[in-house]
Amino acid sequence: MGEAPSLYDGSSERRAPADQATVRRTNLGLVLRHLRDHGPRSRARIAQETGLNKATVSSLVAELADRRLVTTGEVDRAGSVGRPGLTVHLDGGCVCGIGVELNVDYAAVLVLDLRGEVLFEKRLALDLPALGAERTLDAVAVLVSDAVAAAAATGARPAGLTVAVAGLVRSVDGVVTLAPNIGWHDVAVLDGLHARLGTDFPIRVENDANLSAIAEWAMGSEARTPDLVYLTGEVGVGGGVIVAGRLLRGAGGLSGEVGHTSLGDPDLVCGCGRRGCWETVVGMAALLRAAADPGDPVGDPARDLEARLSEVAARAEDGDARTLAALHQVGASLGTGAAVLINLFNPRVVILGGYFAVLGRFLMDPLMAELEVRVLGPGVAGARVVLSTLGFSAAVRGGAHVALESVFDDPTLVPVPSLEPAGAGAP
Amino acid sequence: MGEAPSLYDGSSERRAPADQATVRRTNLGLVLRHLRDHGPRSRARIAQETGLNKATVSSLVAELADRRLVTTGEVDRAGSVGRPGLTVHLDGGCVCGIGVELNVDYAAVLVLDLRGEVLFEKRLALDLPALGAERTLDAVAVLVSDAVAAAAATGARPAGLTVAVAGLVRSVDGVVTLAPNIGWHDVAVLDGLHARLGTDFPIRVENDANLSAIAEWAMGSEARTPDLVYLTGEVGVGGGVIVAGRLLRGAGGLSGEVGHTSLGDPDLVCGCGRRGCWETVVGMAALLRAAADPGDPVGDPARDLEARLSEVAARAEDGDARTLAALHQVGASLGTGAAVLINLFNPRVVILGGYFAVLGRFLMDPLMAELEVRVLGPGVAGARVVLSTLGFSAAVRGGAHVALESVFDDPTLVPVPSLEPAGAGAP
Repeated sequence: MGEAPSLYDGSSERRAPADQATVRRTNLGLVLRHLRDHGPRSRARIAQETGLNKATVSSLVAELADRRLVTTGEVDRAGSVGRPGLTVHLDGGCVCGIGVELNVDYAAVLVLDLRGEVLFEKRLALDLPALGAERTLDAVAVLVSDAVAAAAATGARPAGLTVAVAGLVRSVDGVVTLAPNIGWHDVAVLDGLHARLGTDFPIRVENDANLSAIAEWAMGSEARTPDLVYLTGEVGVGGGVIVAGRLLRGAGGLSGEVGHTSLGDPDLVCGCGRRGCWETVVGMAALLRAAADPGDPVGDPARDLEARLSEVAARAEDGDARTLAALHQVGASLGTGAAVLINLFNPRVVILGGYFAVLGRFLMDPLMAELEVRVLGPGVAGARVVLSTLGFSAAVRGGAHVALESVFDDPTLVPVPSLEPAGAGAP
Repeated sequence: MGEAPSLYDGSSERRAPADQATVRRTNLGLVLRHLRDHGPRSRARIAQETGLNKATVSSLVAELADRRLVTTGEVDRAGSVGRPGLTVHLDGGCVCGIGVELNVDYAAVLVLDLRGEVLFEKRLALDLPALGAERTLDAVAVLVSDAVAAAAATGARPAGLTVAVAGLVRSVDGVVTLAPNIGWHDVAVLDGLHARLGTDFPIRVENDANLSAIAEWAMGSEARTPDLVYLTGEVGVGGGVIVAGRLLRGAGGLSGEVGHTSLGDPDLVCGCGRRGCWETVVGMAALLRAAADPGDPVGDPARDLEARLSEVAARAEDGDARTLAALHQVGASLGTGAAVLINLFNPRVVILGGYFAVLGRFLMDPLMAELEVRVLGPGVAGARVVLSTLGFSAAVRGGAHVALESVFDDPTLVPVPSLEPAGAGAP
């Protein structure tokens, strides 16, 4: 007992004989990921730990070095059998991934190198609903060009760009079918950016909370937790779910739309036009409406979001009764919905992002009290609730990470530099 | 574009060199599954379709025949290249899987042979809450013994037994931690059955809705739909979810507890002691309370469930206003919760089982009306809602199927028959 009932998982499907080039690409990626996930080590240790033979590892490392994805350095004396070898390091300063986020009142970009180091980061306050889709995409194109230029200055070429949008995304053609709070309907983000950028790297479009969940899984404080629910609170509320180490996408990439589940106040109209969506009681508007009168600067969308949230936090620290009551109410409503997610997904951890993370210390007590009451499994079904450490950059980090994954899937995407400007290619 | 962002999925983990015996077992299972899923065919065709070489397939088929899992029959002329060969058929009359279900007011058993044919089926009306755990397990042991004897009469030995329980199950040690409607708390079902049965086949314990979802995935009308939500309505309401072709289990096997999400009437107390659980408005008690006065025979738990449901259906067919109003209300409440599941999981299909299937034709209109209003994705996010064709046997079928999967994972579990009673083994 103890293991999951086996489902077929395609194992009975036709197995195509793997061709040599595919095996080579897979093994190149295997070595590259191994170095990223476990740190620098000798060829001998890589061979021992991956099960590849030593000659193969040497050949793979040589090719990765040709592609400037690894370098070799000092002698590795750890865990080696026989003569110690030189340590192989992940290098990859020559390649980067770009993540962009489009949210209701801002656009952001972040560039990661292959080691996950931030090369560039920028954030613009933008009123997307007022700007409209075309002018927003113009602004995004400028933002991406800035990022590409900044990366180029460090010698890095983009492996890809992933655009996070707070809405329903049809990933197959990069169309945002519905982004209620932005006011978008069937906006062709992928085509619009291709036309503006004219770039040769692949562009993907994905739901923001899904990308944030991937970022948490890849580089957050709870990284590699196989069953993980991420909740982001901004103007809207989104969810991203990792199930057994994989992003839950659903049949059409429309999963995780927790903000529009009927867990809110049936008398309140949501940005999507429905009544009673959960967003109506836990979105940032709900908090600000309860915490401040109209005209209060914390409610002014033209002001920087983090500054406004700091002001709310400062009032709560000062013991302002209205602010504390509003936070208590949001925390309890957050608990009602989080309990549904825990009952359904049985995650090891629920990660609160966006404004939930910034104000989390005031939300946690009422939230946990609701979970105690509403989760069926004993001890809140073993779920912990934590605040994201990635702040508002989770979605752009996830986007950049996804763009880089293509390199780990196939390192031959990164060309071998050549003395002739054209004609560089794999040997 | 178009494919899921790649998560690591353990590909960077240490790869142990597969030993010969493991490869052999895997390939035996591959051939066996191929025959089950695609029907009888020649060795040449199996080789062509699986990518295994012909000599290997011949050797694998010979071993499967030795273990009486396949037989060879007439000449296969379809799709073959060169000389047509004899057709290999899945046989497997010598082995079976047993599924048992424990629900609030009944216990059931079902035996499947390797081809998925039902060898034996039995159902007892049992008042589990009144009976208590020990006497229930006594009754289950008798039920299983009957099933084993009936299977033995056809020459089939059990490969395993899976017990479906309407409650939270800790699968690692087969303890039902909480079954609110049965009134169980920390009942050691696995140990209790081992002690009573003294059998040599493995026993598993699993949530009933999870096993029903597996049955739908394996043999229902929507079989092999990779993203599928199963909802069962009985005294309680349970959910089982297939995500990308795999059962969603969550971190501790406690996923899918949709019946106890806060989507019900906050004034109604649930069997679990909480208020406002979804079960309070869509469970069978909610329907019967609305449809019939106390004392009405349709509400008598001592009567056969299907007979009572037939009576409700007959009243609805006759246009009984109270019955129709009750069904309309349940259908609408079912829609509220189904909308949450569709917003979260984005399934291709939602399958209604248990009493929802029996009375589904009266529930569907109000249900769909709620989905239209409450699902964010256009066109109900592409989800269809269908009635299960497996009836109340879904959980026992899923249980028997899971028990049989061990044979497909490792056909060498089925011994080669020997002239000497002991000492039979693989060559």
